[in-house]
This record gives sequence, structure tokens and C-alpha cells, in this order.
Amino acid sequence: MKIRPTASAIPRHRFPVDPWRLVETSFDHHDMGTTETLFANGNGYIGMRANPSEGREAYTHGTYLNGFHETWPIHHAESAVAFAKTGQTIVNVPDAKLLKLYVDDEPLLLREADLDFYERAISFRSGRSYRELIWRTPAGKRVKVRSERMISLVHRHVAVLRFEVTLLDDSAPVVVSSQLLNRQDGEDEYHVKSAALGEGMDPRQARKFDRRVLVPKLQRHDPDLGQGGEVTLGYQCVNSRMTIACAYRHQLETANAWEVETEVDEDLAKSVFTIRAEPEAPITITKFVTYHTSRGIPAPELADRCNRTIDRACSTGVAALYAEQEAWLDEYWDHSDIVIEGDDAAQQAVRWNLFQLAQASARTHEQGVSAKAVTGGGYDGHYFWDTEAYVVPFLSYANPEAARKLLRFRWKMLDDARVRASELSQRGALYPWRTINGEEASAYYAAGTAQYHINASIAYAIESYESATDDQDFMAQEGAEILVETARLWEDLGFYSNHGDRTFHIHGVTGPDEYTTVVNDNLYTNVMARFNLRYATTVIRRLRQQSPEAYQALVRNTGLEEIEVDRWERAADAMFLAYDEELGINPQDADFLDLKPWDFANTPSAKYPLLLHFHPLVIYRHQVLKQADVVLAMVLRGNAFTRDKRRRNFDYYDPLTTGDSSLSACIQSIAAADAGYPDLAADYFNQSLYLDLADTHGNTADGVHVANAGGVWAAIVRGFAGMNDHDGCLAFEPRLPSFWHSVRFRLLRHGQRVEVTVSGNECDVTVLSDGPVPVRLDGDVRTIGRGETVHIRA
Amino acid sequence: MKIRPTASAIPRHRFPVDPWRLVETSFDHHDMGTTETLFANGNGYIGMRANPSEGREAYTHGTYLNGFHETWPIHHAESAVAFAKTGQTIVNVPDAKLLKLYVDDEPLLLREADLDFYERAISFRSGRSYRELIWRTPAGKRVKVRSERMISLVHRHVAVLRFEVTLLDDSAPVVVSSQLLNRQDGEDEYHVKSAALGEGMDPRQARKFDRRVLVPKLQRHDPDLGQGGEVTLGYQCVNSRMTIACAYRHQLETANAWEVETEVDEDLAKSVFTIRAEPEAPITITKFVTYHTSRGIPAPELADRCNRTIDRACSTGVAALYAEQEAWLDEYWDHSDIVIEGDDAAQQAVRWNLFQLAQASARTHEQGVSAKAVTGGGYDGHYFWDTEAYVVPFLSYANPEAARKLLRFRWKMLDDARVRASELSQRGALYPWRTINGEEASAYYAAGTAQYHINASIAYAIESYESATDDQDFMAQEGAEILVETARLWEDLGFYSNHGDRTFHIHGVTGPDEYTTVVNDNLYTNVMARFNLRYATTVIRRLRQQSPEAYQALVRNTGLEEIEVDRWERAADAMFLAYDEELGINPQDADFLDLKPWDFANTPSAKYPLLLHFHPLVIYRHQVLKQADVVLAMVLRGNAFTRDKRRRNFDYYDPLTTGDSSLSACIQSIAAADAGYPDLAADYFNQSLYLDLADTHGNTADGVHVANAGGVWAAIVRGFAGMNDHDGCLAFEPRLPSFWHSVRFRLLRHGQRVEVTVSGNECDVTVLSDGPVPVRLDGDVRTIGRGETVHIRA
Repeated sequence: MKIRPTASAIPRHRFPVDPWRLVETSFDHHDMGTTETLFANGNGYIGMRANPSEGREAYTHGTYLNGFHETWPIHHAESAVAFAKTGQTIVNVPDAKLLKLYVDDEPLLLREADLDFYERAISFRSGRSYRELIWRTPAGKRVKVRSERMISLVHRHVAVLRFEVTLLDDSAPVVVSSQLLNRQDGEDEYHVKSAALGEGMDPRQARKFDRRVLVPKLQRHDPDLGQGGEVTLGYQCVNSRMTIACAYRHQLETANAWEVETEVDEDLAKSVFTIRAEPEAPITITKFVTYHTSRGIPAPELADRCNRTIDRACSTGVAALYAEQEAWLDEYWDHSDIVIEGDDAAQQAVRWNLFQLAQASARTHEQGVSAKAVTGGGYDGHYFWDTEAYVVPFLSYANPEAARKLLRFRWKMLDDARVRASELSQRGALYPWRTINGEEASAYYAAGTAQYHINASIAYAIESYESATDDQDFMAQEGAEILVETARLWEDLGFYSNHGDRTFHIHGVTGPDEYTTVVNDNLYTNVMARFNLRYATTVIRRLRQQSPEAYQALVRNTGLEEIEVDRWERAADAMFLAYDEELGINPQDADFLDLKPWDFANTPSAKYPLLLHFHPLVIYRHQVLKQADVVLAMVLRGNAFTRDKRRRNFDYYDPLTTGDSSLSACIQSIAAADAGYPDLAADYFNQSLYLDLADTHGNTADGVHVANAGGVWAAIVRGFAGMNDHDGCLAFEPRLPSFWHSVRFRLLRHGQRVEVTVSGNECDVTVLSDGPVPVRLDGDVRTIGRGETVHIRA
Repeated sequence: MKIRPTASAIPRHRFPVDPWRLVETSFDHHDMGTTETLFANGNGYIGMRANPSEGREAYTHGTYLNGFHETWPIHHAESAVAFAKTGQTIVNVPDAKLLKLYVDDEPLLLREADLDFYERAISFRSGRSYRELIWRTPAGKRVKVRSERMISLVHRHVAVLRFEVTLLDDSAPVVVSSQLLNRQDGEDEYHVKSAALGEGMDPRQARKFDRRVLVPKLQRHDPDLGQGGEVTLGYQCVNSRMTIACAYRHQLETANAWEVETEVDEDLAKSVFTIRAEPEAPITITKFVTYHTSRGIPAPELADRCNRTIDRACSTGVAALYAEQEAWLDEYWDHSDIVIEGDDAAQQAVRWNLFQLAQASARTHEQGVSAKAVTGGGYDGHYFWDTEAYVVPFLSYANPEAARKLLRFRWKMLDDARVRASELSQRGALYPWRTINGEEASAYYAAGTAQYHINASIAYAIESYESATDDQDFMAQEGAEILVETARLWEDLGFYSNHGDRTFHIHGVTGPDEYTTVVNDNLYTNVMARFNLRYATTVIRRLRQQSPEAYQALVRNTGLEEIEVDRWERAADAMFLAYDEELGINPQDADFLDLKPWDFANTPSAKYPLLLHFHPLVIYRHQVLKQADVVLAMVLRGNAFTRDKRRRNFDYYDPLTTGDSSLSACIQSIAAADAGYPDLAADYFNQSLYLDLADTHGNTADGVHVANAGGVWAAIVRGFAGMNDHDGCLAFEPRLPSFWHSVRFRLLRHGQRVEVTVSGNECDVTVLSDGPVPVRLDGDVRTIGRGETVHIRA
């Protein structure tokens, strides 16, 4: 894999190390796109990119609401039966971040301003970001400006923006124009250039609309609320018919004389505060903001909700909202923190990643987590399989309720997935490769719909959740129903070979490695399908035995017949997993070993990622991987491979892996650790750890790589601690790379709080709650209670 | 293969058998689309669909000029590197066919008219079509109307339309409005419904523009020429910048009093003849029409050309133009006729197909022959590989100059093909899968660009042309250069396996069978690539030896190095052709034998063609063929397979072949004949023979399947007569199905006219010109001269 510079690429004079915050000490417009992402606020529903309060220059002025999207008909240049029809793109909603400042009628413009001081930070403990600066105005007056943002991790619809201005030298007229701006195409603001590439050529970037998306439906202004009144705007998407309302209200505190005027237009509401400001007399404006969205509830009703939300937020007050935020994060860290002893840079990076997972998942409320969560428009805001494969396993041990909500989200999508399976001439359910509303939105089936393995990654997430929580209520209902329909698809999709061995084959699929597509017997797919079939068999048989009523309900909902379960078992047992005796490895697919070697030696760095430089046909006919999916199969289903085979496979595939996928590094790290390559595991870990912070893939500007953040957790917990949770019992195989003295992490398992401290090839497992927690020790299971510790040596 | 009703499906009361004409005895608007195609006129440059002179109702009002196209940017729903960028669509140009008739101010409208008599025919001997009818007007007057059309097979730019009106009973005012109408979107006329399918879902239909394509550039009216004056209109395509001018002039002959008024607007010119017609006094209007097009010459210059063309045509006169047309066809039939003894229906059908080949190729003048020639807008007017694989071999023996022009057309496209190869990271040249202007226009690479085999089909056409003509001038220049660049591509595309045998493999390609795509070691591709490499080797080595100057010129043009030729030979010798010992067959590709069988028994007729009813992924993972490409390889490169293997392959693949491709039936017929299945060969031959005449694929309305017409010839000459022309010598293996007594056909070979009469398992080969002609007889080569006949018994 291409090893990119990571921590060393971060300019520490601008981004100093701090274990609980990400900090920036000077402004640079060159990496605005990246920092907009890195300092973004979010709660899994509302997301605000870290754009300056002043508006103007930005990579993307972004405010996103999870699941709020516009649709458009996909025009295929050459169409065919059952190609995806409905394009879906997350909408950049009206921007409430704007608080524009004028002193002596001169605007503060970050890029031109003469700054005596600048600092921006986001705190992983307080869940707030701030920017503080001292501006020497064109008239030479020094002005201290502090802006603060918080999106509540507790209250789904609440954001609080504070803006504090203090003249340090002279008096001056100060104007703060607080706005709510519906940008329809961004043309009203300056954009810095996108880093890369021809328009529309990078499938990872968001679609740009060339038309109005939001139709104004409502404008309200209640002048009696707060200072300047409460403003509410409502809109509806042209095609998807989704509705949105958003509102703000201000509280102004100052000893200075002031007045305010509010104007409300369809696409812009603003409250303009005019203050006769005296030196050292602070002006503090608190802007309460709320967003509500729906699939079609009329805007006036959403507007009423907005008004109630703001009422409540204002009466709760800023101090209490801040305190709730901190309390929520205290609990989050209590369940999930990872402490890196003696390496503050890594500590900061690890916590930044875990904090992103919190911001991505806290308040999804049965929406999914999109590839960029709510930090950017990348991948059009679509949900993919990586939430299930990379994020849900973490959440299951950190915030199981959030994990459960994500799985219920997939359960609610089952009807759409049943329809999709039928469009593809299959039984059961086929989850869409990329979607917001449940319909397939992937316009390139070879690297889209053909990735049937998404079904198995949902089954995998259910298994992770069950292992971590033992939530049998969920398993009896949502879990069982998903498992029936996904197993059905696999059994119907595959077939028994006509050759003597009657093995079970799955053809014409694409694995996670998108550098080969539509192949036969993709090993990852077959391994995961086998797991899915077996897990469904186990869960359904157990349900039949233990919960006859739940089983009967399932039969009613799915038309399940007992014989089907036997067929799944038979298919799983007959599943073909290719093995090459000569090389001692599992071929990635039926043809992979026969492909032409890629000429890595003559591929310059600038030609990566390959997908942006070579026609797919060129990539597909070579032995070159975007991510190693045999390796991923070994990481997700380690038991299916002997240690020796795992190592051989890793040795074979690792050199062929470009790591062009951001999902690659964390998995290679875990597999390298497992294969006994601690240094390589550490290298890959760093690739994953700093993927966004050092912008190693060049597209952090489009949003946080959320799945990779889950991968950072997995690389530590699954890789370095070697943890697994099979057969109702925790097990560890510690193998911490030597550059760290020790790593300590927390888990929540079956409601019990567990702390694990890893050091070299040893670890201590301590139960912080009442217990008991079963832990495997030297082949036996030890059940440990509160305060007890077991010491494990690999 | 699905066997569809053929001759028996043709309603003989409407379409009586006639060995030299296609005749229709009554009008039916239900099959207007089909008859518009079947009775269309064309000369390879101009094509006019057989729309009524009255305009109004039509499936498509179509006039096409070979190569005259508009471009548009292809928007890929999800794009990638080097995807085709330029959409190209043949333009429906201004319609000169219109001669609208009014008697007593009542229009003749075919669908509503009270007709005493109706006959329409196109003659394969005169090269003209006519329609004659007796109309009983609403006032009860009988009017005889005869309209005639001819597009000159001699003069590329000339069409002649004649319109004859005779009142049979009473006098009446007669108006004939002769028009030149630029239809921009067809909205000004009625359309009958397209037979099938959702809009845009059938990739075989033409793109419909939703905007103006032709910008008016010029309107001329010279009132002094002919009657009503000469009118010229000029246009330019919005995007492609191609220009067109078209003109008409009339000659009116009648004893009646008349006057004429001509109006010229941007999109409509009309000359309205008003005649005080007396009974039995014929009115004859001759409309000379011309079209000129160019890549960008200004419209006024094209208009001048039009005026000169019409001048010449008028001074030549109708009688002489008709005589030239007949003379041209006399020669054509003299070189290419096929006489079916005792089966007039088949005779008519065979001649109709051969006539289509004449109309498709007579005046292409270094344009290609598109899939529908100039008879319809199907496939957007694109040129494909089938011209080289199916049409050029026929022309090489019937009209070698036309064959040469088609090959020069590919030679002139070499620079574009070099660029395309380089976009695909390959050396040499890669011909576009579908194109008009030389750039790849296939928006679905899996069934488009991946069909690298188009390179080999061009080499195959060159070989056919060389065998038939021995044109060494062509071989030394155009032929050699194409062979160098196509061979280069193959050698660079493939690679030597790392396994012990060091065989040469070609991966990631699509064969002619589009029901599997992007496969490895497609047998057809490997067989044809091997041929291409070997043929290039032979031709280049011979050139080096025999024509050092030409060789040096080639080296200058291509940078050819001697070592390359050795490398081609080595690759050809090492070419991997898979063979399955157990089945005794050649697998279609590396994975084909492992695919899941298709459930033919449960696929109802209505689900064909499969491509319109199943997602590609479903089709691709099954053992089901659109056309059998291993079989095609055996037909094109029979020597590469033993007879036993040919038969085994046929036995294996035939039952898996849906024949959803119109290119399938003729090949299955040849292979069945070769395999010793005369009855099956006859069935397939009928599928091919009546494919358009019985509209067996349901889309003849979109234009003639020209390649299939070439296939009809091949099925007789290559299939029933078992002719081949290897090693400088004709050979035959006659095997005429028993339902025919005998078949006699003509060839032009190395300038010599040859006649072959096949009967059962015997044939006579007679030389009609001076000779000598070498013919293989019982293993020896017999050289025969004028009037000599050899008798061959299989």
C-alpha cells in the first residue's frame, strides 16, 4: 500500500497537540476545505461545517440534516432493465451560521483582516467549538471577537451559536448581521477551488444542482420573542417533496446602547444589531437555532415544532445546555475512551476520531450514518455498507442504543430491499448499495448494485450488536426478520455446481475491492454469505425453540417455511471457498490469480488513486486492489481461516493493495497485527489514524471519513488488543506495537463497564461495574466481577 | 434459439410473391413502420424511408445522409476515466419526399381515403419504387395517382421523385404542394406509436433530441429554373458544426392549364402547383432533389454544389437517369445474383436482401455502412463491427470498389483509434465500438468499448478483400498500416501467464455475445486476435521482402520495428485457446462453464429479448447467449478447429443461444450446415432470410438489419455451398438443404466472373470471364478458364 506521510505532515505550529481538543492557531485559506471538515460540529442529525461566521470564502458553506435530500431522475447514457432510477442528494440547507461583523462599517473578512491573535478549537469534552481573534480594524481599533458553536448531543434539533464582540481601545459603531440564508447554488458566495480533477469525474464528490431545490413555503417573524424577534423559514424540495423549517431567536447581553432591525425574505432572514459600543463593554449575542425536517409534513407544522424547540432551548438557557452537553460526553468517554499513555499526538488523533463517531451517531434517530455523516456533501450523503461493517461494531460497545437505532433503520428499509431483490429477479431482500430513501441510487451497477455483500454486512452488524448487548428483544423481531430475508437472497442468488463436488457458488458479484467487478466466487462475498446463512439458521432455530410466539409472528411477516432454514444450512455447508494449493492462499475470486500483474514500479504517486487515472477496464484486468477484501474477510470472520492461512493471504495480498480506499488502512493494520507484523500494523494504523487529520486521501474537504474513524477504534481494540467476543465470552490476544507504552480502553458489554489496559503482549481486563463479565484466559472462561482484574499474556 | 415464424407470417394477399420486386397491394397503417423500412430507397449516401408523399402519419418521417450527424456530450450517471464523451446521432434531414395532393381542395390522406386500387412496389432491377392508387374523392371523383422514387445508385447526390395525377371521371381543380420540410422534432406530424417499451429503455432505438439540431443558414430561390423555380435550403448542426444544403427543381408536364407559386421559409419551402385538370389529361411532376453535406464547408458553397448537381440531373433527364440506374443494377446482379430454382418466395426474399446491400453500399464514398444503413435512425446511425464481419466479405466478391472504400474509411479513422488506444492505456489502435465521427460513442463500456474484437473484424475484412481481389496496392498502404496498429494493440493488451505454460492471455474483454461481458480469454476474441497477429505478421513480412519502399513508408508512418513483428508471431503462437477435455468443447471464456444454467423452460416467449427484461447482472451470471461467439469464431476461422470440434461446439452452444441478436441466425445456419444438420441450417437460414421481411425481431421499423442481409449471402455461399477462399484458391463443400432443388450464384474474384450452381451435395463452378480461376477439386487445384466448368461432389 502507498504509505503516505501522516503525523509529520501536520504543521504543528498551526495545529498544536492537545489531548482533548483540536486546535488551530492561525488562519490559512489554502486548507479551508479540510479545516471546515475537521472543526465541524454535528450530532448525527444537524451538521454544520466549520465555515467562518462571516460567510464569504469557503470550500463549501455546509449545513446538512441527516436524511434530508432531494431526488432526481437518473439519466443513464445507456440504460438497461432495473438500473437505478432515483438519484438522491443530501441538501445543503439554509445557513444559520452567519453572524457578520462590521466595525465603523468595515466588515471583518478573515482572509484580509489584520489579526493580532487567532485561535480556533473544538473540544472533545465540552462538545463545543470556538474561534477567538483580535482584529485590528482598518481604522486601527483592536476588537476581540469570540464565536462559539454547539450542536446539542442531547437535543436533536438544537444548535446554539454565541458571538461576543469587545472593543479593546476605542468606541465605535458595531453592527452584527445575524442571518439565515438559503443558498440555492452557492453562487452568492465565494468558493475556494476544489482541490482536484474534472467536474463530475470524481464519483466521491457531491452532485451539484443546476436548479432551485428548495421552494419557499413559509416566512414567519414574531417580533416579541428575544431580541429582534423569532424568525422561521419553511421550504419544500421540488422533487422529493421533503419539507424543512428552521428558526432562530437571539438573546443580546450588553451594557452598550443598541437597536435591532429584522427583515425576512424568502431566501434570507436577518436581524441586524446596531450597537454604539464603548471600549471594554462586551456585546454577547446568543443565537438559538433549530431545524426540523420531514418526508412531507406541511411546513407550517414543522414551523410550530421549531417555535416550541426554541422556546424550550431559551428557557433551558445556555449554561444548562452546555452542562448537558458535557454530561453526555462524560458518559460517552466513560464508555468508550481510549487512553494512549505518553503519546499526546496520537491521543489527540484517537480522541478526534472517537469524537467524530459521537458527532455522527448521537442523534440519528433511525436514520443511517452516511459516509461523511453530517460533515459534508461527499458521496451525496448516501448510506453505504461501511456503517454496518465499521461503525456499528464500535457503537455496540460504546453506545448500544445508537447501534440499535441504526439497525432499526435497516429493518425499516426491508420493504424497499424486498422490491429491489425482485427487480433483480431474486427472492428475499437486497439492500441498496447506496441510498438515502431506501431505493438504490448507485448509477454504476458494477461497483454498486453488484455489491450484494451489503446484505452480509448488515447481518454482521447484527451479530456485533447481539454479542455486545445480548438484546434478545431486538433479535426476535428486527434481527430475525432481516436475517431471514438476507439469507433468502443468498440461497437464491447462488447455485450448486454441476461438477462432481456440488459446491455452492455465487457468481456475478462485486466484493468490497472495487478494482475488480462482477466476478465469480468472490471470496469475501462467499465467506460473508456463508456467515449470513449460518447466523440466520442459528438465530431462527433458536427463536423457534425459545420464543414460539415471536417465531409465529416472523412466519406471518415473512412467509418463512422450516425447510428454507435447512436449505440455508445446506448452502452454507456447501459454500465454495477457493483455495490455491500451490500458493497456499485463497484467491480473491475465480479469475484473480490469472490476472496480469500491475506494474507498480512504473506507477508514479500522482497516478493514485488509480480510479481517477485509468479506465475501469484497465484496472479490472490487473492484479491490483483498492482494498484487500480477502484480508477483510479474515478480519471479520477470522475463525474461518487458520492462522497460517491468514498470514499467507496477508503476505500475498498486501503488496497488491493500493489502499486507494479509505476503508483499507485500518483493516490492513488489524490483519498485520494478527499476522505478526507489529511494525507494519503500526504503519497502517497511522495511515488510518491521520487519514483525515493529515488529509492523506486529499478529500477530507468533502467530509469526515466516518467509517475509518470506526476503523481506528477497531485497529486498537481488534488489532492491538486482539479482542474478540465469540461464544458469549471476551477474549484478547494483546500485541501492542513497541512505540507505545500502553493503551487503555473502555467498553460497555451486556451493560457492564469494562476497562482493558494493553501493554506489549499483555493486558489487564478490569470490570468497573457489577459484572459478571466472562473472559477467556488460557483456554478457560473466567467470570469476573466488580473491581476484579484478569491479566492476560499472549 | 427461439424459432420465430418467418415466410408463413407474411400475409401473402398483401405482399404477393414476385422474384424481382417487393410488392404491397393494400395499405395498412398498423405496420407502417415496417413497410417504411422495407420499401425504403437509398444509395449508401441518401436514404429515404418509404413514407407516403402526403406526409402526415408515419412511424418515422426519415431522410438520412450517411455520416451527417449531430453530437452531444454524453452525461454518465456515474462517470469514470476515459468513458466515451461524445454522443453522435444521425440527423433526420429536411424531407423532400412531400408532394401533397388536393382535389377539389380535399386532401389525399391515405388512412382515410376511399381507394379503388392500391399498389406499392420497389423493383430490384430498376432501382425505383412506386405507389399507384385510384382514389375516389369525397366528391366521388376517381383520381389515379402514381408516385415514383429513385435515389441514384450512380450519382451520389441525386434523387428523382415523380408524381403523376390523372382525373378519370370529371374535371376538378388539382393542387400539388411539393415541399422541402425541415422537421426539427417531428411534432408537426402525426406518429404511429412505437411498437415497444419504455422511452429510452431500448438501446437499439435512436436518441430523440429535445432541441433544435439544424440552424437555418441559407434560403435561395431562383424562379427561372424549371417550373416554380429552384429552391435551396442550407443548415448547420448546432454542435457538430456539420453543414448541409438541399435543393429541388420541378419539371411539370401536362396538357392542363396550371400555375405555380413558391414560398421559401427557413424550415419549409414549397412550390404549390394549381392545375385546372380535365379528365384523362395526366399531370406529371418530376422533382429533382439533391443533398450535399460536409464537416464544415459553409452552406453557400454546398448550395452551389446542389445547384450544379440539379443542373446536371435535369439536363441528363429522367429517362437517362433511369437507364443508368438499371445499367448499374444489371452489372450488380451480374456479379452477385443468387438464383433459387423453384422457390419464388425465397427468391424474392434473397434478392430483397441483396438489394439492401446495394442500397447500403453503392455510394458510401468512404463513409461506413451503419447498422441500418440509410433506412432508419436505429442505433443512432452508428457504424459497428458487423459491417466488416458481415458486409465487406460479400462486397469483396460483388462490388470490390465499394469494399475498398469501406476499408479506406477505417484506415482514415486510424488516428482517432490510436488516440483511443492511448486513452485505454494501450499501444497501437483501438477502433471505437460505435461511432460516426471516429470517436467512441458507446456509453456502456461493458457491452461497448470492451469489445476489443472490433479490431480483428477489421483485419478479417481486409483478409476477405485481399482474397477476393488480390489488391496489393491497398495491402501495401492502407491494409498494412491497419494491420500494424491492430496487431500492436493485441500484443500489448494480452500478456504471458506466469504459470508454467507461458500461454498468452487476453483478459477483461467482451465478445460478440453481449450476454456475458468483461470476461477473460473469450474464445472468439483470442481466436480472432491470433488471426489478426498472424495475418499482420504475414503481410508485413511479405511487404518487407517484396516492396521495400512501401515497407519503409510504413515504418515512417508507424514507427514499426522488426522485433515487433516477431513479438506478434510469438504472442499468436502462444495464444491461449481454452479447451475442456471432458466436454470436448472450447469454453466461451474462462468462467463460462461454471455459470448457472438458464431456466429456458420457464422463460416465456414474451421475456425475449432477455436484455429488455432482465438486469444485466442476472443475464451475465447465467449460461445463456445472445449470439454464440464460439460458433462465430468457427465460421470466421474454420481452419482453427477440427470438424469434430466444430460439431461438438455447435452441439453445446446452440441450445444455449437465444438468437436475441439479429447477427445470430445466419451464423448458426452456416455452422449447422457445417456440422451436418441440413434441416437446422435451413431453419436458421429462414430466420435470417425473413428477419426483416417478417419483422421477426419486432424492430424492422427502426431500419433494415444490413449485417443480416450480408449474412443471408454468407449462409448460402459459405453455408450451403461451403465455399472458402484460402491459400489463393476457391474451394466448395456443397450441402444444399433438400427443400431447394438448386441454387445458382455469381461472384467476382480477382476480376473474374464465376458462377456456381449448387444442388444437394454437388456443385458446378463455371468461369464466365477469361479466367484463370483456381478451384480445389479432390485435394488438387484446378485452374479453369472461360466457359470451363468443374463439377464438385462433397
